[in-house]
Amino acid sequence: MKRNIKLILAYEGTRYLGWQKTAMGPSIEEELEKVLKQILRHPVNLQAASRTDAGVHAEGQVVNFFTEAEVSLERLQKSLNGLLPKDISVLKMEEAEEAFHPTLGSRGKEYHYAVCLGSTQLPFYRNFSWHFSYPVNVEEMKKAALHLKGRHDFSAFTNESQENNVREIFDIVIESEENRLKIRVSGNNFLYKMVRNIVGTLLYVGCGKLSEKDVPAILKSKDRTLAGVTAPAVGLVLKEVFYDQ
Amino acid sequence: MKRNIKLILAYEGTRYLGWQKTAMGPSIEEELEKVLKQILRHPVNLQAASRTDAGVHAEGQVVNFFTEAEVSLERLQKSLNGLLPKDISVLKMEEAEEAFHPTLGSRGKEYHYAVCLGSTQLPFYRNFSWHFSYPVNVEEMKKAALHLKGRHDFSAFTNESQENNVREIFDIVIESEENRLKIRVSGNNFLYKMVRNIVGTLLYVGCGKLSEKDVPAILKSKDRTLAGVTAPAVGLVLKEVFYDQ
Repeated sequence: MKRNIKLILAYEGTRYLGWQKTAMGPSIEEELEKVLKQILRHPVNLQAASRTDAGVHAEGQVVNFFTEAEVSLERLQKSLNGLLPKDISVLKMEEAEEAFHPTLGSRGKEYHYAVCLGSTQLPFYRNFSWHFSYPVNVEEMKKAALHLKGRHDFSAFTNESQENNVREIFDIVIESEENRLKIRVSGNNFLYKMVRNIVGTLLYVGCGKLSEKDVPAILKSKDRTLAGVTAPAVGLVLKEVFYDQ
Repeated sequence: MKRNIKLILAYEGTRYLGWQKTAMGPSIEEELEKVLKQILRHPVNLQAASRTDAGVHAEGQVVNFFTEAEVSLERLQKSLNGLLPKDISVLKMEEAEEAFHPTLGSRGKEYHYAVCLGSTQLPFYRNFSWHFSYPVNVEEMKKAALHLKGRHDFSAFTNESQENNVREIFDIVIESEENRLKIRVSGNNFLYKMVRNIVGTLLYVGCGKLSEKDVPAILKSKDRTLAGVTAPAVGLVLKEVFYDQ
């Protein structure tokens, strides 16, 4: 009987070229595929909710594959975690309905972006945060974030325009603690590098290179060059993928 | 004029054999010494508040050295952070009194120890936490910690007895959040592997291998084999060194 297996994956993206398999170097997909094939003794075809970029991390990547193997999922998860590299970890495995598809079935995603402020950054954060050493005004960033909430054409916030660039941002929450910022962005669907361009723009507002009042005009312009820099991959984590049930 | 320079150092200990220079491989001391010599153009003799072990991290290691160079400390810190490996970072530099010595002048230290509970650990924590997959009773651990507070002979909690093993623990605070524990241990002075043996013993109490009621007898026995396992280096951070002024 064909089983549709859904798994929740966490990984540190530092030494990978991203989720997607590529001849250029190591990828999460390739590692997972290799170990699954080794255990199940048949090739698997993986589908993931998000094709995270090089250096981007995940705490809640959702992946599925089909198998007819009758292995228990508890045992399979243990074997996977034993054989996968230490920077990839399967948090959960479950049987999904036959029609389940991680991308098509999703109604949204949440990403977190971490920033370290101040002149020096604790070395523990170097693979997990953007070190931004200019002083920032968090209240201005919060105002800028409000302009981005809701349904907009995000052409100015992607490095690879689609035919339709209208997306909905459910929320942007900016938390500030000592010299660290966490920016939580949730939305129905994201364009290429959209979260990182949003974060870069928010930080430009924070340090005064842009004003929060510029943001509506940037959205309207659909011009990528008017928004802020693309924030580095290192600070980004795919936190959760939402499904209706 | 001879200047006594004090610096606060943070590092990820993962790829080092510890603070102290050794012919066996890389050390924090060797890296810092090399870069200081390169900038100041004279050899320096470093003294550190704590000789952290292989794999142990620091957020507040205190180090001093003497120089006659007239360089500004702001500039020196920038140069150091530019030349040091990315896993070592100078957080602060200041001129100390001539008599200042990081070990002799200290009145205590605080270490933090991080534990990940549950069957799987997020890969981000693999170099910063002990993954302890057995269920634990945090309340029992807190009771056990109370027995360790105060002045005691900690012979049962060191892997290398001194002539005098009496030390004072100021406090042990155990914080629990979701499936993570943070154990904060402060004291006047620590024996070799004392914090890690305390943590291992607390976890043994947590999972029921020992009872909190055993702890006074373990202290009294002065027998290392009666206390819990030495917790792995990976979870330990030297958080702060205390001085009278």
